[in-house]
Amino acid sequence: MKDTLETLRTRTVLRNYSPRPVDDATVEDMLDAMVAAPTASNKQAWSFVVVRDPRLIRRIRAFAPGIIGTPALVVVACVDRSRTDRLPGHISQKIYRTSKLCVAMAVENLLLAAHSLGLGGCPVSSFRDRQIRDLLAIPEHIEPLLVVPVGHPAEAPVPSDRRDKKEVISRERWGRGASAGTSA
Amino acid sequence: MKDTLETLRTRTVLRNYSPRPVDDATVEDMLDAMVAAPTASNKQAWSFVVVRDPRLIRRIRAFAPGIIGTPALVVVACVDRSRTDRLPGHISQKIYRTSKLCVAMAVENLLLAAHSLGLGGCPVSSFRDRQIRDLLAIPEHIEPLLVVPVGHPAEAPVPSDRRDKKEVISRERWGRGASAGTSA
Repeated sequence: MKDTLETLRTRTVLRNYSPRPVDDATVEDMLDAMVAAPTASNKQAWSFVVVRDPRLIRRIRAFAPGIIGTPALVVVACVDRSRTDRLPGHISQKIYRTSKLCVAMAVENLLLAAHSLGLGGCPVSSFRDRQIRDLLAIPEHIEPLLVVPVGHPAEAPVPSDRRDKKEVISRERWGRGASAGTSA
Repeated sequence: MKDTLETLRTRTVLRNYSPRPVDDATVEDMLDAMVAAPTASNKQAWSFVVVRDPRLIRRIRAFAPGIIGTPALVVVACVDRSRTDRLPGHISQKIYRTSKLCVAMAVENLLLAAHSLGLGGCPVSSFRDRQIRDLLAIPEHIEPLLVVPVGHPAEAPVPSDRRDKKEVISRERWGRGASAGTSA
């Protein structure tokens, strides 16, 4: 059992994976957490492909160069346009845009669940869309947004430097409490 | 201390807030979790305005009708275009798009931290951009993406119904392990 605040504060991107396998129950725990994310107007306009076959993972890796080592699984996180396109015009566009944010939140849930279980992952946004679609039989109405390798760490990940909290968080109005020179 | 997987599974949207105040340490715990989210290429192209002044919150509420009751704080979560625009053309566009996903992940971290502390919140994407900008002195290069009220629940939130996991998660290839009739 891992405290939520500690998990949130200590998660860091993991890019290099050991080939150590992950059991089914652990995978399902992570996926349950993923699909419990917020969803705009409860449309759940999302679709996820979970790949565990090592040969398929190697082929995905060739089209998503951000992945290093051998992740135990790769989740391709997508927007499902068939659930946004049937809505009236401007609502459809709005729900489509917001659904991308929901997919991102689901991926963060996956990464946090992974971290709490001693694993790690990395949201990869640079990949060859056409090739990933062909490889995984993803139809046109499903739009891959992030490719997310997850696995055991090959080595302890190094936390990235972050901007000062005062610089990125303003109080009451923009620029207040921010760093000198940026006050509104 | 609240277990991470339980927090992830049980978080649900909270729309109705009691006026019960939230102490400074709790607010800072939530904000620390928020800015620990993943960030594309470590650009941290984000900016957050945290509003706790009840008069300001009432005015925000008038421009974001999804907020009910009296949240203890409202976080306006934004993309900072000044940190994406200085990059070369196509990279700039790509980092800009991905930075929106990072802002969404930061909001999810905020909501999860809130839930683990007995609070709750709701990502609101329908708001009057111009009015929120004017009210909070938000400059043009900062783009509000989500307005997020957070507070104590006025009543226990009701979890939303979710689609069957088999319908939204495919195995190895899209459509496999999905519900009948959608196989690829």
